[in-house]
Amino acid sequence: MTLQEAIDKIQPLDKQAMDYTHARWNTLGKPLYSLGRLEEMVTQFAGIYRDSAPRPKKKAVIVMAADNGVVAEGVTQTGQDVTKTVTENMTKHNATICILSGMSGADVFPVDVGIVTDCDNPGVLNRKVKYGTDNMAKGPAMTREEAIQAIEVGISVVEDLKEKGYDLLATGEMGIGNTTTSSAICSVLLDQSVEKVTGKGAGLTSKDLEHKIEVIKQSIAINQVNPDDPLDVLSKVGGLDIAGMVGCYIGAAACQIPIFIDGFISSVAALLAVKIAPQCDPYLFPSHCSNEPAGKMLLDALHKQPYILANMCLGEGTGAVMGFTIADYAFKAYWELPSFEQTNFGTYEELD
Amino acid sequence: MTLQEAIDKIQPLDKQAMDYTHARWNTLGKPLYSLGRLEEMVTQFAGIYRDSAPRPKKKAVIVMAADNGVVAEGVTQTGQDVTKTVTENMTKHNATICILSGMSGADVFPVDVGIVTDCDNPGVLNRKVKYGTDNMAKGPAMTREEAIQAIEVGISVVEDLKEKGYDLLATGEMGIGNTTTSSAICSVLLDQSVEKVTGKGAGLTSKDLEHKIEVIKQSIAINQVNPDDPLDVLSKVGGLDIAGMVGCYIGAAACQIPIFIDGFISSVAALLAVKIAPQCDPYLFPSHCSNEPAGKMLLDALHKQPYILANMCLGEGTGAVMGFTIADYAFKAYWELPSFEQTNFGTYEELD
Repeated sequence: MTLQEAIDKIQPLDKQAMDYTHARWNTLGKPLYSLGRLEEMVTQFAGIYRDSAPRPKKKAVIVMAADNGVVAEGVTQTGQDVTKTVTENMTKHNATICILSGMSGADVFPVDVGIVTDCDNPGVLNRKVKYGTDNMAKGPAMTREEAIQAIEVGISVVEDLKEKGYDLLATGEMGIGNTTTSSAICSVLLDQSVEKVTGKGAGLTSKDLEHKIEVIKQSIAINQVNPDDPLDVLSKVGGLDIAGMVGCYIGAAACQIPIFIDGFISSVAALLAVKIAPQCDPYLFPSHCSNEPAGKMLLDALHKQPYILANMCLGEGTGAVMGFTIADYAFKAYWELPSFEQTNFGTYEELD
Repeated sequence: MTLQEAIDKIQPLDKQAMDYTHARWNTLGKPLYSLGRLEEMVTQFAGIYRDSAPRPKKKAVIVMAADNGVVAEGVTQTGQDVTKTVTENMTKHNATICILSGMSGADVFPVDVGIVTDCDNPGVLNRKVKYGTDNMAKGPAMTREEAIQAIEVGISVVEDLKEKGYDLLATGEMGIGNTTTSSAICSVLLDQSVEKVTGKGAGLTSKDLEHKIEVIKQSIAINQVNPDDPLDVLSKVGGLDIAGMVGCYIGAAACQIPIFIDGFISSVAALLAVKIAPQCDPYLFPSHCSNEPAGKMLLDALHKQPYILANMCLGEGTGAVMGFTIADYAFKAYWELPSFEQTNFGTYEELD
C-alpha cells in the first residue's frame, strides 16, 4: 500500500461491535464500569477488529532502527555504531526490549529503515531507505520523497505482520541521536521553546545539553520548517526511524490493528501520524509516560492518558510492551469474569 | 504480635543492600536510570528484604471482608448479604480478584474480620472480631479495643503468610458500605468537605449520593471524631475491613515484606497506618489510582504516585495485583538484562 492508499483505507470504528461489547461488560458480576479503562480498551478493540467477540491472539513490537546525520554535531554520548549493535542484539535476545516483551509473549521485529552501515543479520528486516539521514543542522535530514518512502516501509511491515497473524502491535525505535530529532519536531508541532522540550536523552552533561538545544534551534531555523505541513517537519528535522513509526500507526489503522505507542520518540511519530491522517487516532493506544521533558506534553497533545507511570525513557518499545500487559488484564477480565448469574448476588443497575 | 510489638519491630530500610542494588543497575546495558521507577522499586525491595540480591518468590493478596452497620441508613445499592456472597465466591475462583490475580500468579486469601453472618467455608479465614460494626450514624462503629483487635488480625495474617513463604503482599477488601466509612475517614484525615471526598461507590442515584453525604456528615458530628487521633477516627467512623488492612501494612513492615496498596478504601487504610506508625511508609507501594473522587487526593497525602492509571474502582485488591505485574517487569529486567560487557557497546557514564 502507498501512504495515500493506506489513508484511504482507514475506517471509523465499528459502532455495532462496540455497543455489543459495552453491553456485555454490564452483564459481568461487578459494579458497572468499575474496571474503567480496561472496559473501554476491550470495547475499543471490538470496534477496531469489527468483531463483537474481540480477542487479540498474537503480539509484536516493531522496532524501527535508523541513524541520524545530526550526530556529527556532537549531540549524543555514544557513537553511531551503537544503533547497529543494539539492533543486532535484538535478534539474539540480548536487548532490553527482548527481555520485557517476553512478559506478554510478544515477538520483536527490528527493522533497518536507515542504519548507516549494513546489518549482516537475517533477523533484522532490511528495508533501508538510505544510509542514515543527512545532518539537519546543515540542511534537510531527507527529502520529502524519502520520508514518504520510510512511512511506506512502516505500512508494509504492518501488512506483512498482519499476513502472519499478528493482531496487536506496538512501536519502538533504536537510533542514536533520535531524541534530538524528536525534540526538534516536538518544538515545531507543539509551538514550544526548544529548551522546554529537550532533555539529556541517553545521557549528556548540562553543557552538552545547551549545545544540543543550540543545534536543534539551528536545524529548525536553517530548514525554514513549515509547522502546518507534517511531512515537511518530518523530512527536514525528523528521522527515518520516526517516519517508519508514522507508517506503522497509519498502516495499523488501515489494517484494523490496535497499536501501542511507546515513549517520547514514538509519541512524536504518533502526533505526526494523526496530523497526516486524523482518522488513525482511535487505533492508537498510549502506554507509559516518558521521563523526557516533553513526554507528558505529547500525550496531552494526543489527548491520550498513559496507562503506566514509571518514569522510563529507554526506548526500543520497552514501555509499549507494558501496554500489552494492560490489554492482557483487560481481556482476561472480559472473557473470564463470572456473570451476575454465576456470582449469585443479583445485578448492579444503571442509575443516573 | 500486638500492634505495639509490630510497631517496635519496624526497621529503617537496609541502606547497604540498596546501595549495592543501585550500583548493579548501572552495570546493566542501558542508559543510566532509563528504567526509572522499575529500578527504584527493585532497589527499595532490596532495602526491605535487607538482601542485596532481592527476588520476590511468592505473592498473596489479603482480602479483608467485613460488614458495616451504617448500611442500615440506605447508603448502598445492594444489601449486606453481598459481602458474604462475594467473599465466599473468592474461594471458588468466582470473583474478579481471583481472575486478575492469576496474571501474576498471586494467591488470594479472603479473611472474615467482621462479616455479619458466619461463613461456612474453610477457604475464608475466620478471624471475626464482631458481627459487623455498629451504625456509625448513631454512635461509634466499634470500640477502640475492637479496632486494635482488627488491626492485630491483619498483623497476624501477615505473620502467618510470611511463615508460609509469602514475600510480596497486596491488600484488598470486600464490605458493602465501605466507601461510606472510607469517605468519612478521608474527610476527617484530609480535612476536606464530605462532598469533595464522597462518590457513588458501587452505584447510587444522585439523590442517594446526597443522602450518603448527609449520613457521613452526621456520623462525623455525632461521634465527635478527633482528627489527630487515627485510632479514634478508625474506631468511630471506620470499619473492621479498614482496620484489618491497617494491620496488614504495619504487619508487612514489621515482617520486612513489601505490600501494594489497592484503591480508595485501601489507601484510606494506608493513610491511617502511616499516621499510626510513620516508619511503615517505605514498605508500602502504590498500585493504581482509584476512580473514586478522593483516589488521587489520598495518594497525594501518602506522597505516592500510582504506577497505573485505569480509572478502576472495583476493590477486592484488583488494582493492587496489577502492581505485582509492575514488580514482575522490574525484577525481570533486573535479573535478565545483559550487562554492558555482554551488549558490546561500551558503557553509559554518570555525568552531571
